[in-house]
Amino acid sequence: MSLEHFIDEAISPWMRDDGPESDIVLSSRIRLARNFADIPYPLIADEGKLEEIHDFFQEKYEHQSFQNHEEFEFISISDLTGVEKHVLVEKHLISPHLVKYSDEAAALISQNEQISVMINEEDHLRIQLYYPGLQLGKALEDAFAFDDWLEEKVDYAFDEMRGYLTCCPTNVGTGLRASVMMHLPGLTMTKQINRIIPAINQLGFVVRGIYGEGSEALGNIFQVSNQITLGKSEEDIVSDLESIVNQLIGHERNARSILMKQSELTLEDRIYRSYGVLEYSRIINATEAARCISNVRLGIDLGIIKHTSRNILNELMVLIQPGFLQHFAKKNLTANERDVLRASLIRERLELEK
Amino acid sequence: MSLEHFIDEAISPWMRDDGPESDIVLSSRIRLARNFADIPYPLIADEGKLEEIHDFFQEKYEHQSFQNHEEFEFISISDLTGVEKHVLVEKHLISPHLVKYSDEAAALISQNEQISVMINEEDHLRIQLYYPGLQLGKALEDAFAFDDWLEEKVDYAFDEMRGYLTCCPTNVGTGLRASVMMHLPGLTMTKQINRIIPAINQLGFVVRGIYGEGSEALGNIFQVSNQITLGKSEEDIVSDLESIVNQLIGHERNARSILMKQSELTLEDRIYRSYGVLEYSRIINATEAARCISNVRLGIDLGIIKHTSRNILNELMVLIQPGFLQHFAKKNLTANERDVLRASLIRERLELEK
Repeated sequence: MSLEHFIDEAISPWMRDDGPESDIVLSSRIRLARNFADIPYPLIADEGKLEEIHDFFQEKYEHQSFQNHEEFEFISISDLTGVEKHVLVEKHLISPHLVKYSDEAAALISQNEQISVMINEEDHLRIQLYYPGLQLGKALEDAFAFDDWLEEKVDYAFDEMRGYLTCCPTNVGTGLRASVMMHLPGLTMTKQINRIIPAINQLGFVVRGIYGEGSEALGNIFQVSNQITLGKSEEDIVSDLESIVNQLIGHERNARSILMKQSELTLEDRIYRSYGVLEYSRIINATEAARCISNVRLGIDLGIIKHTSRNILNELMVLIQPGFLQHFAKKNLTANERDVLRASLIRERLELEK
Repeated sequence: MSLEHFIDEAISPWMRDDGPESDIVLSSRIRLARNFADIPYPLIADEGKLEEIHDFFQEKYEHQSFQNHEEFEFISISDLTGVEKHVLVEKHLISPHLVKYSDEAAALISQNEQISVMINEEDHLRIQLYYPGLQLGKALEDAFAFDDWLEEKVDYAFDEMRGYLTCCPTNVGTGLRASVMMHLPGLTMTKQINRIIPAINQLGFVVRGIYGEGSEALGNIFQVSNQITLGKSEEDIVSDLESIVNQLIGHERNARSILMKQSELTLEDRIYRSYGVLEYSRIINATEAARCISNVRLGIDLGIIKHTSRNILNELMVLIQPGFLQHFAKKNLTANERDVLRASLIRERLELEK
């Protein structure tokens, strides 16, 4: 496979567009949790019931289109190889949970990969819509429209008092999880992030690293999302989140400009050295690669590194993941083999910029 | 000052020639300690006596030539600025001691910088001859001839029983210190050097780092020299040292080939990353720079890095020293300023290769 073609596979088409505040906000996502009325939640339903849902979705929505989201592809998770599952997870098109929950798990994904519906995950339906940059309002609007379109054929579990019913009580009500993926190297370098995360948590929002395990945020990429789904309208949830995100953007820009003022040369040194590591290393693990990619992206945003496209962060963060590397190699790889292939793909990708 | 011109100043002309085993042996040096008969050693002589020697040398040898070593320059140390002194020390043309000993200290240096005579150092005369690669025999032969040439005009302190008399008893006899500068990254990486150094010491030879303080060998460059000057002929001292050096060369080549066999990729990674640091860093201290330069030179020797000249190690090791950086900047620099200028000169030097 050529690297160009591989990158095309790694990067969802919608990621190629620019969005508002995209120097800091990589993407916005709306997720709606929905369930069929009169069918038990996947956790307790027997496989026959889940198969019904699986087949219903395949029959009704495969190859359908909704607005500009064309040609939904219907994917039965059990038809996928281990590596293929890995790849969909790394593209955030499905969750790691979907792979484990049921033999009847499936996904309905639009050609532009902007809409993905997970079927038989924790809930019967998990609807996801992705947008580049900060576009939560637009995303919510489209999510409502898409939700209505599905509802033409699906009878949702809905209670006048409690709203949409979900398997886990934390999702009851709106069933809405709105989130944005943010690149926050300035707040990380200045360590302000350690003070900011607890403060945001207290407001009922969650900040966590998107890649990597536990609290470590690989590549300084953080997801900010609402915690509360009940007792607030969808519009309020989204506008509250948007206001938090706008504050974070302000703090991040501020941190970047302080770093530039106080220690421009140190920052330049860090950014260029990271570029050097990406250009020259022969063996690189995911953590170091992510750190370097984050620094280079910051360098691009600050105008220090020129002639390198901004998209490099989004692209490389996906390319360097274990699933993608194995997809590219078309075989399982040891950690060592992945470190070598990762270095080589990064070098090739940078060559494309020249 | 242009970088090319600056490099010309940094690198002694004789360094540009290739010598035997020059992938490992950077240079060979013969040093002879000599004193005038009937004049007390510099440590206890009064300034008037030292002035006599100073003036005698200026009068007799300034602008003279010996064989192909033309146009001796006579330099009174007290005429030099602090930075100029630093530069001569970093080029190994004079010792740090010469600068401190006496107001009558001087140096007689041939145009090709291959011969340097320090005047009024610890002894009245310290004669030094430098050759590229491993050429101890040739160096000794030339040193004898040069010594004879000086002796036509100088009455040496010599004792039939003890040989040449010197200030410090460790130099009595031949007054000879033969040494080679070796690049030993393979023995360092495999940690064999820690076993080898004590073994060589027991044989009456000394191994020590050339740059850097204490036992640390900046850039993996080691000086190997004889300890004993008495009770052995000059020829025996030199041939014993040569045999030690040849063994070290064998061990080093062996270590390199084992590294290539057992972990070629790890080695390549280390070498290329070092190249990346030199090409991209904006701030770099002498220790890190030396380590990277050593790795890159190893890469050149192993054929991993192409299109970069071998001389880069010798050149850059001099260029990155504090004195040279300040000479280039034409002013005193703080440690931070030096780290920035160092990074910039290294980058420019690598650009010259492209």
